[in-house]
Amino acid sequence: MDSHANLISSLRSGDVRALSRAISTVENRAPGWSDLLKALFPYTGHARVIGLTGAPGAGKSTLVDQLARHYRKAKNPHFSRTERARNGAPATSVTSLDNYTVGIIAVDPTSPYTGGAILGDRIRMQEHFSDPGIYIRSMATRGSLGGLARTTADVATVLDAAGRDLIMIETVGVGQDEVDIVRLADVTILILVPGMGDDVQTIKAGIMEIADIFVINKSDRDGAEHVEKEILALQSLAARRDGWTPPVVKTVASEGKGINELGAAIADYESYLKKQNLELRKSSENWQERLVEMLRDAMLEKARAQLSDGNLAKLAAEVAEHRRDPYTLVEEIAGKVVK
Amino acid sequence: MDSHANLISSLRSGDVRALSRAISTVENRAPGWSDLLKALFPYTGHARVIGLTGAPGAGKSTLVDQLARHYRKAKNPHFSRTERARNGAPATSVTSLDNYTVGIIAVDPTSPYTGGAILGDRIRMQEHFSDPGIYIRSMATRGSLGGLARTTADVATVLDAAGRDLIMIETVGVGQDEVDIVRLADVTILILVPGMGDDVQTIKAGIMEIADIFVINKSDRDGAEHVEKEILALQSLAARRDGWTPPVVKTVASEGKGINELGAAIADYESYLKKQNLELRKSSENWQERLVEMLRDAMLEKARAQLSDGNLAKLAAEVAEHRRDPYTLVEEIAGKVVK
Repeated sequence: MDSHANLISSLRSGDVRALSRAISTVENRAPGWSDLLKALFPYTGHARVIGLTGAPGAGKSTLVDQLARHYRKAKNPHFSRTERARNGAPATSVTSLDNYTVGIIAVDPTSPYTGGAILGDRIRMQEHFSDPGIYIRSMATRGSLGGLARTTADVATVLDAAGRDLIMIETVGVGQDEVDIVRLADVTILILVPGMGDDVQTIKAGIMEIADIFVINKSDRDGAEHVEKEILALQSLAARRDGWTPPVVKTVASEGKGINELGAAIADYESYLKKQNLELRKSSENWQERLVEMLRDAMLEKARAQLSDGNLAKLAAEVAEHRRDPYTLVEEIAGKVVK
Repeated sequence: MDSHANLISSLRSGDVRALSRAISTVENRAPGWSDLLKALFPYTGHARVIGLTGAPGAGKSTLVDQLARHYRKAKNPHFSRTERARNGAPATSVTSLDNYTVGIIAVDPTSPYTGGAILGDRIRMQEHFSDPGIYIRSMATRGSLGGLARTTADVATVLDAAGRDLIMIETVGVGQDEVDIVRLADVTILILVPGMGDDVQTIKAGIMEIADIFVINKSDRDGAEHVEKEILALQSLAARRDGWTPPVVKTVASEGKGINELGAAIADYESYLKKQNLELRKSSENWQERLVEMLRDAMLEKARAQLSDGNLAKLAAEVAEHRRDPYTLVEEIAGKVVK
């Protein structure tokens, strides 16, 4: 861990290049990534994590940018920097000391083959370049060793340790990947738009259930009322276990409309969690899932180590030629490996 | 394995209820599921597996139904039932002996909360009810122990052993799950539709690369040419390792248009694989991935046994309260389980 001491000290003093380097180490599972996370963990737990997802074209990036600006203007009501310093967070990480500092993780598994999103993020990053209080990181880690959800959570850990008050995780699409990524946030926001047909109906499993707040963006378009009615109708079908009824906030992100209201809805939900003593329970439940996921990744690594490439190719060929039954084969290997 | 002898014998004689029972056993990881798969494996390897995916609303179900009808009318050119019987496949599994028999796995993690898809599948099943040569099974196994891709592959194994000539795996959405599910098929088809904006651009990583055939469905709509141009432009960027250039087939599935052409494109690709001696290589490569995945699942099961529910909850709470570092914890557990 000593090898990371300089990196961590730079990162915690607000050095953005150190932050980027630490994130790359974790994202690429570069040597020492695991030790780095271990060393950073004690500095985490201060940031609030907001997950945002919605279909492509829902205007997520614009909304996230607006929300970032909104928080940059706001004082952090939860605790001052001085208190945070006492809690072990860096006292001088960014310019505007008492305002929120923001980290944005844009998770976009869009292919390098197409590449469009990455370009878009570069433009976004330039726009915010003048404000070191907003850090944007784009991730497209399909090739990474860990799952995408796992890696995203690890990157959020780095941002948290670097003293970012507010971390926004934004995904493209509403598939299971995206659900897995945003559901472990403290607050999960689902962004819908009018005029996508039977959008709400085709939204996938879990995504309706995980939304703590619904946003209808581009709400100046025809059909906004209809989308709202659909959401309310679905809500009437099932009550949430925690008793919270997710509000519906209408925005026109491109004009900055509804952003204050969204900020207020987020604050409402956080107050609710606090009042009902649900914060720790939610966090514990999230960690149960994350631990199992982490264990799965660890097992995958061990499984790969067992099956050296040459050996794996030979066995796979035997299975493909039907000379060997894969179910027995795997049991045999597992039996040898597991204590 | 003896306990499964009756089930297997019924399933191989064409008993649809036995087939359903066997699939349930495998899907739910009911006691003996692994032994059942072992016992079925020797009867597999005859079916061709076609994977189909595309965004919600692309008309996948309609296309799959049309393709099923198409194959039901076609003679199986690859080998007659008699030959198959010699190869160990059942001689009298279904009614129209020399025609293709079809199994459809509709993988849809749509929420019970919305429930639309399940209902839709029931209607589809009724439509095909008069033809025992088409078997439809809907899967929504989000809670299952194995991964969705793994379970789907296992269910395909059961259908293969039951003598279905052609297995179609259809998924909702184009997320990583869907990629993982369809990429292990013999033939992978990506279904696009015109008028979804910059659809092709937002299609996720890997999905463009895994498509062996592109379908533009609802191609009577405006914008079909545009989608085709986009596909061709993307193709010009990267050549496939196997030298195959995925063709673009235009269909209007609701009117049965283009289905013969799609059938021909599938046959072309299969001939290409055969001619280039790539069939076994593709299958071997798929099995390499599946074996690692299976080994991981087997090891994870053992590791999870370490984390009884009560123990997991306790550890997760400790992590949530920052009394324990999750990275070290997982390493410790993995170290205890694996030699």
